[in-house]
Amino acid sequence: MHDQLERANAVLREHEPALFNALSPLGRRALYPRDIPFQAAEARGKKYNGTIGQITDGQGGAVPLPAIARALSGLDEAERNRALLYSPIEGLAELRELWRGWHRRGIAAEVPSTLPLVVDGLTHGLALAAELFAGEGTVVAVPEPYWGNYDQIFSLRLGARLVSAPAYRDGRYEPRALARALDGAGLAPGEPALAILNVPSNPGGYSPTVAERAELVDSLLAVADERPLVVICDDAYSGLVFEEGIPRTSPFWDLAGRHPNLVAVKVDGTTKELSYFGGRVGFLTFGVAPDSPAVAVLESKVKCLVRAGVGSPVATGQVLAIQALRAPDLEEQVAAVHELLGRRFHALARALESLDRESLRPLPMNSGCFGLVEITPRLRQHGLVAETIRQHLLTFKDTGIVAIGTDFVRIAFCSVDEVALPELVRRLDRGTRELAGAALLQVHH
Amino acid sequence: MHDQLERANAVLREHEPALFNALSPLGRRALYPRDIPFQAAEARGKKYNGTIGQITDGQGGAVPLPAIARALSGLDEAERNRALLYSPIEGLAELRELWRGWHRRGIAAEVPSTLPLVVDGLTHGLALAAELFAGEGTVVAVPEPYWGNYDQIFSLRLGARLVSAPAYRDGRYEPRALARALDGAGLAPGEPALAILNVPSNPGGYSPTVAERAELVDSLLAVADERPLVVICDDAYSGLVFEEGIPRTSPFWDLAGRHPNLVAVKVDGTTKELSYFGGRVGFLTFGVAPDSPAVAVLESKVKCLVRAGVGSPVATGQVLAIQALRAPDLEEQVAAVHELLGRRFHALARALESLDRESLRPLPMNSGCFGLVEITPRLRQHGLVAETIRQHLLTFKDTGIVAIGTDFVRIAFCSVDEVALPELVRRLDRGTRELAGAALLQVHH
Repeated sequence: MHDQLERANAVLREHEPALFNALSPLGRRALYPRDIPFQAAEARGKKYNGTIGQITDGQGGAVPLPAIARALSGLDEAERNRALLYSPIEGLAELRELWRGWHRRGIAAEVPSTLPLVVDGLTHGLALAAELFAGEGTVVAVPEPYWGNYDQIFSLRLGARLVSAPAYRDGRYEPRALARALDGAGLAPGEPALAILNVPSNPGGYSPTVAERAELVDSLLAVADERPLVVICDDAYSGLVFEEGIPRTSPFWDLAGRHPNLVAVKVDGTTKELSYFGGRVGFLTFGVAPDSPAVAVLESKVKCLVRAGVGSPVATGQVLAIQALRAPDLEEQVAAVHELLGRRFHALARALESLDRESLRPLPMNSGCFGLVEITPRLRQHGLVAETIRQHLLTFKDTGIVAIGTDFVRIAFCSVDEVALPELVRRLDRGTRELAGAALLQVHH
Repeated sequence: MHDQLERANAVLREHEPALFNALSPLGRRALYPRDIPFQAAEARGKKYNGTIGQITDGQGGAVPLPAIARALSGLDEAERNRALLYSPIEGLAELRELWRGWHRRGIAAEVPSTLPLVVDGLTHGLALAAELFAGEGTVVAVPEPYWGNYDQIFSLRLGARLVSAPAYRDGRYEPRALARALDGAGLAPGEPALAILNVPSNPGGYSPTVAERAELVDSLLAVADERPLVVICDDAYSGLVFEEGIPRTSPFWDLAGRHPNLVAVKVDGTTKELSYFGGRVGFLTFGVAPDSPAVAVLESKVKCLVRAGVGSPVATGQVLAIQALRAPDLEEQVAAVHELLGRRFHALARALESLDRESLRPLPMNSGCFGLVEITPRLRQHGLVAETIRQHLLTFKDTGIVAIGTDFVRIAFCSVDEVALPELVRRLDRGTRELAGAALLQVHH
């Protein structure tokens, strides 16, 4: 990445010297990373394309909730007006109330949470939380492997220091990873820190069990005994749980109001929860009682940052989301999408069982939109990393997957037809065998 | 503002001490300013409400282009899919091409400009340009009075130093203001600088004449002889010109490609140009030839920052904008909105003539969405500032206007019915007389 940046800046320096000289430090270090959207763009048009975390019908079509599809083919005049005009900076009051009802369903009344503020999609919520709490050098613990965009949001833009918390140990989920990472981060006594909790996880496709969840929460409460700890719950995939007995609610609800030194922040959105990707409607919620005098100040700060960054949140998407949240059969509409994804989840899980675990080790999966596969050290010692496999599948197998760092590949089952998943995995398996064979041949010659 | 911030932070420190301690420096200084949206929120429900720069039918309803209204009551399936799914980070290819055609109409082929990148509304475009070019201490010249959100975008978020360029001298437009401000800013030899050009202006409602435009452009080219100069053209109100003989195109087109040291940046959007406020579709364009090797790098940098801030631009708004831009009679649809605004413009201009110029001096207006009125020194020396007048009109006159700093009030004619404008101005006049009378009485006692 550093070399790429040097080369890119050199091009700019040569062809637009004044522009290059006028770049800010941030402008100088910005460069579109070769992560998920970049890789998804490369995989466009491939027959088997498991790159993108978007719910589609498997052929690139949307899977809208009927309520949203209906709204897009006819809003009444009052709703149309709201869709066309500016939204209040904090979002439409009706949507804020409806979303609060939606994300608190099944949550005990005594668990504190603020009325959600509407933002321009989930990433915007994360970026705002980052602006509020992360500055130059702030320690942010993230489970590894993680969604690469955290790098841009926290480090590139704000100069925070991401501290890796290995989420798996010997192929099993490690609930104390974040706490361990913070313990080893060299923080001064009482220095505030941040942690990102992404359940279900991207790229992991995993949600902790009841026992693991308890361990996770306890370990974070123990950190809060030592220092102010902001836990940002990236709840993008909230509710997408495909195994019985696995808690379906966000860990935010186990953390909010639990410890005076633990600041729980929830970022969620209609993107995956209402299968509405193009609307850019997200929410930012704090684990603070809605009647606390602190709420007005928090809202004021967030609104200031929203205004500074995007002016006001998108109104059209909010109005469409409202139509969905008003539907009396919303739960059923959402359940139908979950069922579709559940069938794909099981198809992928079954297919991954056939992999040769000496080469490709599937990590535990029970939720989310993805299956994550680890490339074994045996292959890696022959120089076979995730990017090699990805390129090979693109070039020779008409297949797109995502490389996560050097050690993992991610398969997005949410955008692949159920019946296509076994073949996609077969191609991953075959492609990897070919590469491994070639690597071994090289060793012998 | 500083006192307000201290008080707000004290509330947070008292009620959520851990959260307060964990705030970043930016989080600590963020607070929603008492500027336009704040003042518009206070004026909600007032009979005469000239606060908000949004085109409405005068009763709070939208004034959509027929093409967009039609699209909102029925998209075909392919378009619906695009509206529901993720947009590419750079925006939908079709929209980028269509917008390029739209904003270059009438522009000579040799004037260089890149294919526009789609962003989440005009403010987002400004914020991205700011991230690219403004860092701690960067000098940014702005015509004064200016849209208050520049403070949040450039100073609060990025630490840039706004340098005021008085846009009026003795009640007349001053074309060399930006160049003068940069001359006096104490810049080191060759140090890059930024200038914001907002034509038609907010809050001024003014576009330079042909002669003034030539002077403005020359003065900026002269600055570029001395240093790299980034001119950010905030073209929010592009095309809204209501007087014959006044140039209607953005000054961006007079600056792009004109000087090796002048970097022209254009930020525009569908918000006002297509009367679509709730869609949040803006564009970021550089005065660089589209076939320059620099373009790929620039795009990469912008896409990185888009991804870091909002993930991807809103798709639904883009699809609706595409329907409008495809309409064969688009020019006529837009002209109909301009006609409506033109009638209001003239109604306001006529009404402002009746003001007592010893107290309230209307500044020259010929374009945009606003009329700007200066409070004369005679009144100000009695302590009568813009905020006093605004509060008085809110409380006693059922009327909302916007206070800009201490010396100006702004009337948004774009959201007030033509027939209501004379009465709105009468109330401003009467309210100000009442306050002046009271102030004089106090002096005599």
